[in-house]
Amino acid sequence: MNALEKLVNKNNDDKFICVGLDTDFDKLPLHIKSSANPVLNFNKAIIDSTSEYCAAYKLNFAFYEKDGEEGLKILLETISYIPSNILIIADAKYGDIGNTSRMYAKSVFEHYNCDAVTLNPLMGKDSLEPFLDYSDKLNFILALTSNKGANDFEKLKLDNGKFLYQQIIEKVKEWNLNNNCGIVFGATNGEELKENINFFETLPVLLPGIGAQGGSLEDVVKSFKTVNRKSFLINVSRGIIYKSSGEDFAEKAREEILRLNNEIDKILNL
Amino acid sequence: MNALEKLVNKNNDDKFICVGLDTDFDKLPLHIKSSANPVLNFNKAIIDSTSEYCAAYKLNFAFYEKDGEEGLKILLETISYIPSNILIIADAKYGDIGNTSRMYAKSVFEHYNCDAVTLNPLMGKDSLEPFLDYSDKLNFILALTSNKGANDFEKLKLDNGKFLYQQIIEKVKEWNLNNNCGIVFGATNGEELKENINFFETLPVLLPGIGAQGGSLEDVVKSFKTVNRKSFLINVSRGIIYKSSGEDFAEKAREEILRLNNEIDKILNL
Repeated sequence: MNALEKLVNKNNDDKFICVGLDTDFDKLPLHIKSSANPVLNFNKAIIDSTSEYCAAYKLNFAFYEKDGEEGLKILLETISYIPSNILIIADAKYGDIGNTSRMYAKSVFEHYNCDAVTLNPLMGKDSLEPFLDYSDKLNFILALTSNKGANDFEKLKLDNGKFLYQQIIEKVKEWNLNNNCGIVFGATNGEELKENINFFETLPVLLPGIGAQGGSLEDVVKSFKTVNRKSFLINVSRGIIYKSSGEDFAEKAREEILRLNNEIDKILNL
Repeated sequence: MNALEKLVNKNNDDKFICVGLDTDFDKLPLHIKSSANPVLNFNKAIIDSTSEYCAAYKLNFAFYEKDGEEGLKILLETISYIPSNILIIADAKYGDIGNTSRMYAKSVFEHYNCDAVTLNPLMGKDSLEPFLDYSDKLNFILALTSNKGANDFEKLKLDNGKFLYQQIIEKVKEWNLNNNCGIVFGATNGEELKENINFFETLPVLLPGIGAQGGSLEDVVKSFKTVNRKSFLINVSRGIIYKSSGEDFAEKAREEILRLNNEIDKILNL
């Protein structure tokens, strides 16, 4: 099953939540902190309690790389613990000259065996091509991010009348020859989402920014419903994995994803 | 000595070459390949033969990360082998939400103890702030890169009449409150360099793209000479470290950097 099929299967099953495993030792429940391998144990418990209900997992590589060798080992073990029918997204925002991108692509898709990756398009097509060459993977390219800094460049208007993020999406559609491209579109940009959703055409969309960052789940789901289109993932990290800081953290994570799924269902079936 | 001082000292000593330690096992001389720790041995030999003559070393993190734990160990050992008066640049092109950038900043500046880093500004100010908060370090922000893909977005014209890369430079000047920002400007863009060099003001400039990528050393040095300005680094990777594939690789690397220094001197003192 290739990456796009994994996504489509889950979406057809009305699963749209991507659980962000941005696991930070400092934020772990006390009883886990004192265990032998706290971050890995935490991740496994979260995966056990949420894998039936989510569409994908997103692993922020920074949270693991910062611990050097030990962190990379945990990253690899977490990835191999995720059931094989669930999309695994490496959130690394790569984008470098071809030479270097080739190495990152090999690392993320072959060594870490991820299904998908986030990419930064600033340096243009040749910086992304090594990733796009993997036709069975998915490449979520940053178009409009969820942070405040999106105003600095992404929302600038070009002399052709388009915003930079629209120009990026235009290019992503051109580059999508292997049908393995998607975009990242921050859920904090509700208005822009509504205005541009037809313009995305069939590109899968990864939407961070719900919860802690202030994006509205309802706005996002309604926008996709209006155009009768699935193929999207709503990422929630802290809002799920740190829902409780007690011994019941995994149970509370499950309750939260069930609550979110329920909310999405209601909107879709209104 | 902070990062900027290291750069200024070397530039005052007429040293402008940054040696790119993008070391690839496959490209190592045969006799090194069969040694106990080939990449580390190669790096040490290159450092021994070039450290007197270069201004900086740039380590492309991808070349080390791809080998997992082993690669990160070699990266750390290479960095600690570099004499402390020479600027060490982590070429990683980071740029993520503040949360994540904070981790990368801590990793690159505290764990790896690098003096400088390359950053991708697409996501805007808040994605770079955690790096900019380290006032004794240097942050080289991608403005106009050396690859063909620079045409896709960086060279697009905005509705204010500026090119995107010019808008980035404008913002970098605004963000430079700690006097710890610089820019990356590809040496392959000789015309743009000439036209924009006054606009850089005092920002240090890291210029990749000489040699294999087709940038002209002469054009670059002349541009800086015309405005009577130092504070720049010309990166050369393959052209130095793989100058010879034989047992004399370190000697040939030294000869090549001496040749480049000589060429630069000639242009500056014409």
